[in-house]
Amino acid sequence: MTDIEKLLAIEEIRTLFARRLRYMDTGEWHRYAALHTDDAVSETFSSVSIDGQAIGAPIVGSTAIAAAIEHYMTGGIARVTSVHHAHCPEIDFVSDSEATGIWPMEDHLWWRDGAREEFLHGYGHYHERYRKVGSRWLIAHRRLSRLRVDSSPGFHDRLAPG
Amino acid sequence: MTDIEKLLAIEEIRTLFARRLRYMDTGEWHRYAALHTDDAVSETFSSVSIDGQAIGAPIVGSTAIAAAIEHYMTGGIARVTSVHHAHCPEIDFVSDSEATGIWPMEDHLWWRDGAREEFLHGYGHYHERYRKVGSRWLIAHRRLSRLRVDSSPGFHDRLAPG
Amino acid sequence: MTDIEKLLAIEEIRTLFARRLRYMDTGEWHRYAALHTDDAVSETFSSVSIDGQAIGAPIVGSTAIAAAIEHYMTGGIARVTSVHHAHCPEIDFVSDSEATGIWPMEDHLWWRDGAREEFLHGYGHYHERYRKVGSRWLIAHRRLSRLRVDSSPGFHDRLAPG
Repeated sequence: MTDIEKLLAIEEIRTLFARRLRYMDTGEWHRYAALHTDDAVSETFSSVSIDGQAIGAPIVGSTAIAAAIEHYMTGGIARVTSVHHAHCPEIDFVSDSEATGIWPMEDHLWWRDGAREEFLHGYGHYHERYRKVGSRWLIAHRRLSRLRVDSSPGFHDRLAPG
Repeated sequence: MTDIEKLLAIEEIRTLFARRLRYMDTGEWHRYAALHTDDAVSETFSSVSIDGQAIGAPIVGSTAIAAAIEHYMTGGIARVTSVHHAHCPEIDFVSDSEATGIWPMEDHLWWRDGAREEFLHGYGHYHERYRKVGSRWLIAHRRLSRLRVDSSPGFHDRLAPG
Repeated sequence: MTDIEKLLAIEEIRTLFARRLRYMDTGEWHRYAALHTDDAVSETFSSVSIDGQAIGAPIVGSTAIAAAIEHYMTGGIARVTSVHHAHCPEIDFVSDSEATGIWPMEDHLWWRDGAREEFLHGYGHYHERYRKVGSRWLIAHRRLSRLRVDSSPGFHDRLAPG
């Protein structure tokens, strides 16, 4: 890669990353899968539970990842309002078509059942891998390491089986 | 635009944006208007009230925008301390001299009247348009969409008519 | 500097900055000093106290800076968990080998002694200077200006003399 190709790729990856967080927080799920490679892997669910079961296994495939996050945010007894913010990344190139990114992050999630409001407020780093497919950079792998998570005692009740 | 002109323009817009938030939080109002085009439009006030009246209409003109934000932050019975943080943007070029930017944002505002402290803590996205005037990129339009706002019950009392 | 050299330098400084915050929050102290010039100066400690004494004087030298922050975070009666986030910077070049950066920032610190949890949550700007040493940009000077700091009453007790 020339210097300018590298700079353009960094911009594209930054925008790709920003777009994913925005689609998640504004609920544009139909646009979410296409930001990932077909064989993308997400390990960010391994610390949360859906339908009362911890999802320890990585989720494989862009469509499955999009379906899992949509279900997590909109399924259950109430929708989640979320804010995901990420900060200055470290992006490195492994090859002309592969890159890694480490992003400091903070997330807020809230849901409400009548007068009861539950919250989660977390901090950590997204560790991502990107791959160039044709002319576009896409997300190929995601893992989330946590520095701290605060949540209300009932936060995980939303998706509990009835 | 060549690739390098585009990359330089993105850097300039990022710095322009950062500068605006800094001038707001450090109260450098005399520098605020000049970051905008003369005919800039701000719709960010449409959800707040000044002197007890909701400002539903956009504010037009760089000088009027600067005056409105300065009045909002320093007028009334107490000054506001503010922190505005914005995160990885999505910047796109409409033409060689026009661009758009979407910025995830978070703002904190506090004011104190003796022992009473009021706060607002919000989350959302700035949607901006930029225009190149001569050799400089400037802010031409701003809108704020909210994901969530938390505030103390008396937060909006500060600018209420006496 | 050519335009492209400038863009590459901005990327390198952004990554350098991101790396410093990450090493601090993940406790990789052995990597911290090397991000600074040998003669780097940090004034960020001037508003905190270690071993009960305010450190009003700047800390000089990359090794001393790394030792001071490591002691602050891991010394005393409990380790500190920290989250440091920085947002869109303003980076300017003073010469081909000198640059300045202003970074809006937010930090969270927590420590726990049994059931007692103490916290600090601050907001402000890092003001940094960078110098190119050989082929690498390094941090040469750091100062922190605060917009606001909230902390629990006992937060500073951790490093108090016994």
